[in-house]
Amino acid sequence: MAGDGEHQNNTGTPARVGTGRDEQAQVLAKLRSGTLKLYELEKSLAPLDAVQVRREFIESETNTSLEHIGAFSIDIGRVVERNCENMIGAVQVPVGVAGPVLVNGEYAHGEFWLPLATTEGALVASVNRGCSAIGKAGGADVRILHDGMTRAPVFAVESIVHAKQVVDWVETHRETLAGVAQGTTSHGKLTGIVPYVAGTNVFIRLEFDTKDAMGMNMVTIASAKIADEIAKETGARLVALSGNMCTDKKPAAINGIMGRGRSTVAGVALSHDLITRVFKTDAATMVEVNTRKNLVGSARAGAMGFNAHAANVVAAMFIACGQDAAHAIDGATCMTTIDLTPTGVYVAVTLPSLPVGTVGGGTGVGTQQECLKMLGVAGGGDPPGANARKLAEIIATGVLAGELSLVGALAAQHLARAHKELGRGEKR
Amino acid sequence: MAGDGEHQNNTGTPARVGTGRDEQAQVLAKLRSGTLKLYELEKSLAPLDAVQVRREFIESETNTSLEHIGAFSIDIGRVVERNCENMIGAVQVPVGVAGPVLVNGEYAHGEFWLPLATTEGALVASVNRGCSAIGKAGGADVRILHDGMTRAPVFAVESIVHAKQVVDWVETHRETLAGVAQGTTSHGKLTGIVPYVAGTNVFIRLEFDTKDAMGMNMVTIASAKIADEIAKETGARLVALSGNMCTDKKPAAINGIMGRGRSTVAGVALSHDLITRVFKTDAATMVEVNTRKNLVGSARAGAMGFNAHAANVVAAMFIACGQDAAHAIDGATCMTTIDLTPTGVYVAVTLPSLPVGTVGGGTGVGTQQECLKMLGVAGGGDPPGANARKLAEIIATGVLAGELSLVGALAAQHLARAHKELGRGEKR
Amino acid sequence: MAGDGEHQNNTGTPARVGTGRDEQAQVLAKLRSGTLKLYELEKSLAPLDAVQVRREFIESETNTSLEHIGAFSIDIGRVVERNCENMIGAVQVPVGVAGPVLVNGEYAHGEFWLPLATTEGALVASVNRGCSAIGKAGGADVRILHDGMTRAPVFAVESIVHAKQVVDWVETHRETLAGVAQGTTSHGKLTGIVPYVAGTNVFIRLEFDTKDAMGMNMVTIASAKIADEIAKETGARLVALSGNMCTDKKPAAINGIMGRGRSTVAGVALSHDLITRVFKTDAATMVEVNTRKNLVGSARAGAMGFNAHAANVVAAMFIACGQDAAHAIDGATCMTTIDLTPTGVYVAVTLPSLPVGTVGGGTGVGTQQECLKMLGVAGGGDPPGANARKLAEIIATGVLAGELSLVGALAAQHLARAHKELGRGEKR
Amino acid sequence: MAGDGEHQNNTGTPARVGTGRDEQAQVLAKLRSGTLKLYELEKSLAPLDAVQVRREFIESETNTSLEHIGAFSIDIGRVVERNCENMIGAVQVPVGVAGPVLVNGEYAHGEFWLPLATTEGALVASVNRGCSAIGKAGGADVRILHDGMTRAPVFAVESIVHAKQVVDWVETHRETLAGVAQGTTSHGKLTGIVPYVAGTNVFIRLEFDTKDAMGMNMVTIASAKIADEIAKETGARLVALSGNMCTDKKPAAINGIMGRGRSTVAGVALSHDLITRVFKTDAATMVEVNTRKNLVGSARAGAMGFNAHAANVVAAMFIACGQDAAHAIDGATCMTTIDLTPTGVYVAVTLPSLPVGTVGGGTGVGTQQECLKMLGVAGGGDPPGANARKLAEIIATGVLAGELSLVGALAAQHLARAHKELGRGEKR
Repeated sequence: MAGDGEHQNNTGTPARVGTGRDEQAQVLAKLRSGTLKLYELEKSLAPLDAVQVRREFIESETNTSLEHIGAFSIDIGRVVERNCENMIGAVQVPVGVAGPVLVNGEYAHGEFWLPLATTEGALVASVNRGCSAIGKAGGADVRILHDGMTRAPVFAVESIVHAKQVVDWVETHRETLAGVAQGTTSHGKLTGIVPYVAGTNVFIRLEFDTKDAMGMNMVTIASAKIADEIAKETGARLVALSGNMCTDKKPAAINGIMGRGRSTVAGVALSHDLITRVFKTDAATMVEVNTRKNLVGSARAGAMGFNAHAANVVAAMFIACGQDAAHAIDGATCMTTIDLTPTGVYVAVTLPSLPVGTVGGGTGVGTQQECLKMLGVAGGGDPPGANARKLAEIIATGVLAGELSLVGALAAQHLARAHKELGRGEKR
Repeated sequence: MAGDGEHQNNTGTPARVGTGRDEQAQVLAKLRSGTLKLYELEKSLAPLDAVQVRREFIESETNTSLEHIGAFSIDIGRVVERNCENMIGAVQVPVGVAGPVLVNGEYAHGEFWLPLATTEGALVASVNRGCSAIGKAGGADVRILHDGMTRAPVFAVESIVHAKQVVDWVETHRETLAGVAQGTTSHGKLTGIVPYVAGTNVFIRLEFDTKDAMGMNMVTIASAKIADEIAKETGARLVALSGNMCTDKKPAAINGIMGRGRSTVAGVALSHDLITRVFKTDAATMVEVNTRKNLVGSARAGAMGFNAHAANVVAAMFIACGQDAAHAIDGATCMTTIDLTPTGVYVAVTLPSLPVGTVGGGTGVGTQQECLKMLGVAGGGDPPGANARKLAEIIATGVLAGELSLVGALAAQHLARAHKELGRGEKR
Repeated sequence: MAGDGEHQNNTGTPARVGTGRDEQAQVLAKLRSGTLKLYELEKSLAPLDAVQVRREFIESETNTSLEHIGAFSIDIGRVVERNCENMIGAVQVPVGVAGPVLVNGEYAHGEFWLPLATTEGALVASVNRGCSAIGKAGGADVRILHDGMTRAPVFAVESIVHAKQVVDWVETHRETLAGVAQGTTSHGKLTGIVPYVAGTNVFIRLEFDTKDAMGMNMVTIASAKIADEIAKETGARLVALSGNMCTDKKPAAINGIMGRGRSTVAGVALSHDLITRVFKTDAATMVEVNTRKNLVGSARAGAMGFNAHAANVVAAMFIACGQDAAHAIDGATCMTTIDLTPTGVYVAVTLPSLPVGTVGGGTGVGTQQECLKMLGVAGGGDPPGANARKLAEIIATGVLAGELSLVGALAAQHLARAHKELGRGEKR
Repeated sequence: MAGDGEHQNNTGTPARVGTGRDEQAQVLAKLRSGTLKLYELEKSLAPLDAVQVRREFIESETNTSLEHIGAFSIDIGRVVERNCENMIGAVQVPVGVAGPVLVNGEYAHGEFWLPLATTEGALVASVNRGCSAIGKAGGADVRILHDGMTRAPVFAVESIVHAKQVVDWVETHRETLAGVAQGTTSHGKLTGIVPYVAGTNVFIRLEFDTKDAMGMNMVTIASAKIADEIAKETGARLVALSGNMCTDKKPAAINGIMGRGRSTVAGVALSHDLITRVFKTDAATMVEVNTRKNLVGSARAGAMGFNAHAANVVAAMFIACGQDAAHAIDGATCMTTIDLTPTGVYVAVTLPSLPVGTVGGGTGVGTQQECLKMLGVAGGGDPPGANARKLAEIIATGVLAGELSLVGALAAQHLARAHKELGRGEKR
């Protein structure tokens, strides 16, 4: 990055860029005349210059000032290669902290400050209140129930007889296919092969242990090799490396049932006293709100999420921590349960398909890496996979905090209204 | 950023902050001793100072440098009030541009450069290719089919007889309830009331025209008043202002069927020649990929999205444009269809629940507002609602570009493999 | 039946058939040689003879005695024309009665004996116990929340612009389409038109009040005319008169959300005392079983039914009462809720899509009509529609009885085990 | 029936009953006074007499003649014990035959006449046409992809930590649990154990090979023992033996993904010539109808079935063959696919959860057994399981015939309309 040793220059001050103003003007002229493509800038310019010229071009094309977008501090050398083509700068998403939250996981132990990148007012405050309650309750239990990233190529076959032959071949050649996968990656490991048939469509859902990576890339590369082998040996035609039974970035029952990413569950027991003090409500009302809203309401709506607002926490932590934001869709398919217990309530969140990683993707971008560092999970873990699992445990705890807080708030209002109505002598 | 004195100082250089170092040290000491709460900083410090002190506190607590997170340029006066509590800085999400893409909508006309905030390599390039194809095809058709933001309070009733009475009362007092809503907002307008019953649970799904706002806030305020009125008049107990039949931030069939936000559909006709030149495949193969992957695969997976990667574009544009990132979950429940036509294919994306706005929420944050300005949709439209609808049309076109490109790429690989296999004389 | 010569002879005794043995032998020979088709028998033979000859042919072809299948008593003159082609006889499905059950509906008042056609041991006994509890509780409340049978033709359009045009045309020509429907039926009445778009697919969901008929036939006839009109006026191509958004005989969220058939809800309040005496359990345990099994379990399974065994009662009463047995799929998408109340529990079943009728279809078959008569709902009601709605109310009450009984039984076992474990001093 | 002395007397003629008229009158009086319960009749009377007295009682209570319901021929000795309590007689469901249909399965080979018990006019004729097409095409391919009946008890645990302990215990004690199952049944065999967690709810989905039985009974008995063992060893509380993740008689994604009963797929290739001759349409139109209706329409409706009318055939064959009619819900969750091929189309139906048996349940009832005999599958197979699988293959072929026929009919109409419109020179 860019010449001055402190920050790179992002504001267009000529002195700090590696390319002269004249040269940039020539490039801009070429862009405008169409003799140079916008994505070709990095071929002839240093990353920072390319981004600046591109931004200026867009400013001129759209007659807009992109001053703030240009005011980034992150080192973009790797970003333009790995994370973002045609880069013009960065958006700044405000980060608030909630916590500390006490986590009793198998990978995450102790207190953590949760970074939440969001523009939705009240979200951080809400999660913060949940974190406080969790702390008072002695911490959240968290467990990872399953861990595996998947890809499911789809093949076209000639007939359902052929479909059965392909399935049979796959089921009797698991070792062969594991060997094929092994050749493509030193990090990932093939852990599951499940075939599905729909008429002449055969889907082979491949599952891998991807250690600290979210892993879609390594999984896709390994799956391509496996798919080629299957095609070659069975005569099935590979139609698409992703056949949507993976299922990536679409809410899908298969992910809930088979698990995908880090299947994580978190829970906490709240005493009657704590419920009264922190949430100004009572156990029965919390249970009622959860049942009528999160269970009955979601069921009646034909929803695939049985929670209050898990998506808010998942999205905010994913953006902060350099996760793939589109994966919030998979990650947020959460079920929140609240049981009445002799001593209060037990609240739990179940996240069957939370795809997270601490290496690769956006985890290396400057600001995102700082968030991961705040959580002590930047980079690869020891043993491999430990960091990604720790991150999953922390995010699940954040989701639990958010659920606690919102359900608690709704219950408090409900209880308050009920008291008020009773006070007014109204029949309910 | 840095160095021009116009922006706030975010990099921790002492001289530029409004509060003295001593004062900050005292505050830090109070935080550490617990006599001051982290969220109370804004009460005694200017926003920028509060954020800096809080960040320093977190740096010290987590033993982490948060230099980049502190290096923001956006004006945070409003942000700390409206968008993010306990702010410590911002994450920088790289923004690439795709386009220009030619849009033939009812609100968006002409060429647009799409800002995509993402760390997923290849995404911008992929969307870019789709935009190019759309341009060569004469532009994408886009239409908004329905427009309404919803909230569905859940009430507890005594019996199913009571449930029917509540439903009947609501259905005969639509005017009354519209009047109640009118009193709470000058912008929103109640446009629909649909009751649902599940045993002793009554859900009243309220729909509003929210003009240029995404609108959850105004809708929630109006719904609270309406819910109180219903409770008062019918004796139903209001359990939660959101009963999950809204459905907000959970994938839900009700949103697909009733619509939510801006229900938008976009399509484009590609000629055989264009398919060959741009995508290196043919019409039949594109149809086959779409059918086997997006229709059959998703159906077989029990998925609620019938698309290739709509979530990528929705999430990237939502983050860039200051939309609620958790709404990507609603927005991405897209269906992609590809028809074989006499001249090639017609590709369409249907997004029944795309919740977007150009005022409120994160739209006022500096970098996000610049992205909205790039699209010519920052702030309120003329007439009101026109900007938000224009944004929805542009995002839908971006999704179309992404789908075109990925399906095209899969089809090209499929076709290439098929040719290769034929070349080897293999039976398929 | 039975020796009087007035009814058809079903037992194969030659003397009683209208056709001579020789003639039958000739016909059989033609069938075997292929010069006569099996379905052509009714053209040359009286219904009873045709059925007998066909049965003999099948007996000979399959080397099986079909003595019992031939031993029917129902008058088959209309059956062979309206209900069943290529008839060879009838299967006898055992009918048990449960009840009487006390119904407090808007159409059904008083006690009813429920006919259940089933071969599943314990089902009738289970429903019977539920009926008894309902009686002791003062009867079940039942209400119909919505009533309408639907058909949704699917049209292909040229583009999404065309799709919007079709939708707009339909929405501005509701009166025209209602007039078209009117011309096809004196019984049914068009009550709703809702368009849906998925790319170039336009679905027009037409809803009708079908009075006492289940109504698919009249609805289909009227829909055909309407679809032709839409095609003629808009240039949309009608692809299929049923486009699966109806949705008929497939479990579908749209039916839960929009309603289909008779949307019915039934509930009953059980006192603590009654729960103890009849079900040997307690209120909290019933609530727990319902929550963990019917709400959480179904949600976790990705199920579209949130009940214990509604399908058993719906199927058994449908078969007994001459309803379309395949409609049990629609009818059984039931949600069971159990609330803890100050006095015990309130149990309710919600059946959003219960398609039933008392005229047409199988309702005229001898045995089935007797079952309808048992319930006082055979034939058309006064006013029209009253009988079908009464039947819906009774069936919903039967479902409630079944749910009560099974959940009660599970709760009793659960409670017993808990006591036993406590008795053994086991930690739970 | 009637007049030969061999069958039981069902028509109320006094001379033939085993109990005197006086005695019956006394019993009736007791029933009316309430001193005798309706279900107690079999304790003091022979089955036939008990049924007759009960029917007379109901006739008198409902003021209805139940002549036809009383006119059954089946031997009810076992029926009243095993299939139906409180029996009053039987309904007669007309049976038509379709076929013969040529099946190329692994268990079913050759031609079969399909018995369909239905009152829905045109159904048998429709299936018949499909059978004819299948025959002309050389028969239907059928394969069973998975075979296992399931039960999933739900346990309550104290915390998510406890949940993980239970899961771990189960996964490390598979042999123990298999041994427990073995002790309860000589027929069934435990073949799978899959644990699922939702907060404090632990579901253990147990899968069994049930040979020729549909198997719910043996599975439930074995599951009860296993559940007790789990509860004893882990401290988990067994809440319900069926926790709805089985999933029985509710449409559920888990059954599609994991399979339940006999997961069966059937397909057939139709040549262009055959499509023209039998269906009066063409290949492209069949594909279009299937895509727009069965794939896009069902997806847009949030449906769990992607077929035209699989439920009709499943329900009709289930009723004819003594299957549990409520299982039509599980059985009918079918996906129909139609591929364009160089020579025409390949049509396939995929039925992932078809629960059928040839022993137990209603398979022993006289008429139903005759239907099973027609198909050569009555009783246990050789090897065990072969008959039930053969039945599954035949039913799947019936479903295929039904789908072919209805899609073909819709396509023919579509094509005819298209031609007509073209003939009129209309713009489409």
